[in-house]
Amino acid sequence: MPVARRYTPTNNFKTLSSYLQHVYAVIMAGGSGTRFWPLSRERSPKQVLSIIGSNSLLHDTAARLSGLISAKNIVVVTSRQQEDLLTPHLPKIASSNMLVEPLPRNTAPCIGLAAFHIRRLDPNAVMLVLPSDHRIRDMARFQEIVRKGVEVVRRKDALVTIGIPPTRPATGYGYIQFEPAAENHHGLVHKVKTFAEKPMLETAVRFLAAGDFYWNSGIFLWSISRILSEMEEHLPELYQQLKNIDSAVGRPEYENVLLNRYQRIRPISIDYGVMEVSHTPKYMLSGDFGWSDVGSWDELYRLMPHDADGHAVRGKAVFLDSRNTLIHSPEKLTAVIGLSDIMVINTPDATLICPLNRAQDVKLITEKLRKEGYKESL
Amino acid sequence: MPVARRYTPTNNFKTLSSYLQHVYAVIMAGGSGTRFWPLSRERSPKQVLSIIGSNSLLHDTAARLSGLISAKNIVVVTSRQQEDLLTPHLPKIASSNMLVEPLPRNTAPCIGLAAFHIRRLDPNAVMLVLPSDHRIRDMARFQEIVRKGVEVVRRKDALVTIGIPPTRPATGYGYIQFEPAAENHHGLVHKVKTFAEKPMLETAVRFLAAGDFYWNSGIFLWSISRILSEMEEHLPELYQQLKNIDSAVGRPEYENVLLNRYQRIRPISIDYGVMEVSHTPKYMLSGDFGWSDVGSWDELYRLMPHDADGHAVRGKAVFLDSRNTLIHSPEKLTAVIGLSDIMVINTPDATLICPLNRAQDVKLITEKLRKEGYKESL
Repeated sequence: MPVARRYTPTNNFKTLSSYLQHVYAVIMAGGSGTRFWPLSRERSPKQVLSIIGSNSLLHDTAARLSGLISAKNIVVVTSRQQEDLLTPHLPKIASSNMLVEPLPRNTAPCIGLAAFHIRRLDPNAVMLVLPSDHRIRDMARFQEIVRKGVEVVRRKDALVTIGIPPTRPATGYGYIQFEPAAENHHGLVHKVKTFAEKPMLETAVRFLAAGDFYWNSGIFLWSISRILSEMEEHLPELYQQLKNIDSAVGRPEYENVLLNRYQRIRPISIDYGVMEVSHTPKYMLSGDFGWSDVGSWDELYRLMPHDADGHAVRGKAVFLDSRNTLIHSPEKLTAVIGLSDIMVINTPDATLICPLNRAQDVKLITEKLRKEGYKESL
Repeated sequence: MPVARRYTPTNNFKTLSSYLQHVYAVIMAGGSGTRFWPLSRERSPKQVLSIIGSNSLLHDTAARLSGLISAKNIVVVTSRQQEDLLTPHLPKIASSNMLVEPLPRNTAPCIGLAAFHIRRLDPNAVMLVLPSDHRIRDMARFQEIVRKGVEVVRRKDALVTIGIPPTRPATGYGYIQFEPAAENHHGLVHKVKTFAEKPMLETAVRFLAAGDFYWNSGIFLWSISRILSEMEEHLPELYQQLKNIDSAVGRPEYENVLLNRYQRIRPISIDYGVMEVSHTPKYMLSGDFGWSDVGSWDELYRLMPHDADGHAVRGKAVFLDSRNTLIHSPEKLTAVIGLSDIMVINTPDATLICPLNRAQDVKLITEKLRKEGYKESL
C-alpha cells in the first residue's frame, strides 16, 4: 500500500491552545449557488450573500472559528472568478492562505490542493474541512463538536465526519449510517457503517424512520497525512497531479502547471472518492448545533421568522388571500393575491415566482437563461 | 312636463361635413382605474397608460374621431387632479374644451356639465358620449356606426346607445335588451326594451343564451336639448345645480359656484338616472367594431397576442412548466416556474402576482394599501 508521510497519533500537547495550534480549517468557497437565482449570480455567489442575518454566509463561516482556530490557520479555496469577490468577506485571512483552483473539479481535488498546502506549513496538522455557505446556529456547540472531532483524529488517526440529525426525509443530502452504540463523548461519537448517496424519497423516509442515518454535512476532520495517504491509495491519478502542482509552488511556472494539471483532473467528490471506499476507521460526530446548508429558497423560508399567516418577508409586501409565502423584495413593494406556498424573489434586475416546493428547480431556470441567451441575468 | 330648449329634428344639411359640424364628442376622462394597479396610479390613471399599443387609451379615443368630428368639437371632462396629466395626450384639444369637475359624481353630472357647455356653443348640437379608456379595434366601422347613430338622433330625437355583441357571460357590464326585429340600417338599429344592471353569473349566462342582450358600452348619442330635457325631468335637483353652474360661466365666482354646487350633487350614473327611467324612444346600435373596455388585467390578457404556450408578455420573461400567463415586465426579467394562469405585473416600484381569474380583486389591494399606509404605492 503506497502511503504519504505518516502522522503519528499523539496526545503530547501541554495546553488546549497548543493542542489546537496544529488545527487548520479549509473553507471550500468556489460554488456559485445557482439555486438562489436571481439573488445569487456568477458575480455574487451564495456564500457572499447576506441571505440570513446581516453578514454573508462566508463571513459567518470564518467568524465561527474565532477562538478555536487562529486566522493564520484558515485556508480558503476558491475559483479564479471569485477570488476578489471573497476578500471583503474575509478581513482576517492573509492572501497567502487563499488558494485558487483554475477550474471547478468538485471537492476531492479542492481538499487535496489544500492538504498539500497545509502539509508545507505543518506536517502534523489536523484539517477541518468546511463548506463556506452553511448556517450554524449554535457556535459554541459547533466549536465543542470540532474539539471532540480533533480528539478523535488525534487518538485514532481516523476519518471523521459530522452527521446532522435529520428533521425531514430530505432527498438533497447524502446520508451516513452509523453504529447506534456510541463510543465515548456522551454518545456523540459513532463508528460509521456506510455512506449513502442522495436517496429517493421512499428511501429517505425509511432512513428517517430507522434512526441510524444522519445527513452528511460535508464537514470533515482528519490529519493531513491521513487524507493524503487516502488520496494516494484511492485517487492515485489525482494524487500525482496534486503532487506535481505542489512541486511547482514558489516557482515561476506555478500558474501554468496548476492550470495544466487541473485540466487533466477528473471531477470527483471526497465522499465518492475517499469516504465511501476507504477501509480506514471512520467516525461520525453528531452535529447537533442547528445546522442548515441553506441549500435552496424553501430551506431559507424554513429558517426565517414567519408572521401569523406563515409569510416570511424581507422587504415590503402586502397580501390578499395568501398564506405561507417567501417574499424577498428589499427594494420595492410586492403584492400577492390568491396564491399560497409560493416564493417571490425581487432583485433590481430580475423577478422569480415559483412554488416553494419547486425551489429545487430554480437551477433549471439558470440553465434555461444560459440556453436562451440571457447572459446578463446569470 | 318641464322641458329645456327643444331641438327640432331636421335633415336640412347640404353636405356630410355640414351635417357633422353640429356633432360634439364628450370624452369622460376622470377615472383612476385602480384595477390596473400597480401600473395605474393616482398620478397615472388607466386612460393615460399605453396599455395596449404604443399610445394611451385617451389619445386613441380622441384620435379615433379624426375625420368625423373636428377637434374644436371635442370636449373632455376630467378632474382637478388629472387635468394637467391629460394635456400631453390631447395635443389638438383646446384648453377651453377641457371641463373640470371638482369632485367625482359619476356619469350623469359629468354629462350634464358637458351638455350645458355645448349648448352655449351650439344649441342644435348632437352629443356623442365616450368613455376615455376603452379600446376599439376597427376605427372605420366605429365611425360608420356613430354616423348612423347621429342619423337616428336627427330623425327621431331619441336616446341612442351603442350595444356590444357579448362574447362571454360577463358580470362586469350592464346589459341592454333590445327588440330583435331591427329597424333599418341593415339590422344595426334596434329599439331598446330594457336596461339591465350588472348581472350575477347565472343571469349573464341566460342573457348570452337569449341573444337579445348586448353589453352596455357607455357610449351614447343624443341631442343636447333632449338630454337636458331628460335631466330636467328625471334628475331635477341635478339639473338645477348644473343650471346654476352654467349661469356662473365667465364670471369671477365660477370656481366657487362649481365647487359649491358639486358638493351638493348626489353621484348618479346616466344609466340609472336617465336611461332606465326615461319614456323617450331609445335605440341601440350594434357596436360590432372590436370593442373592449380593457377593464382589468385579465381583459388585457385576452386582447394581447399569445405565444404557443398561451403567454402574453410585455418585456422579458422565461418560463418553466408554465402556461397562460400575463407578464408585464418591461424593465427587467421575470421568471416563472410551475405556475399557470397567473399575471405578474412588474413596475419600477411594485410587483403584483395574482391569478388571472382574480384580476377583479386588484382594486382590493389598492384599498388595502391605503389602509396599511402604503400611500406612496397608490
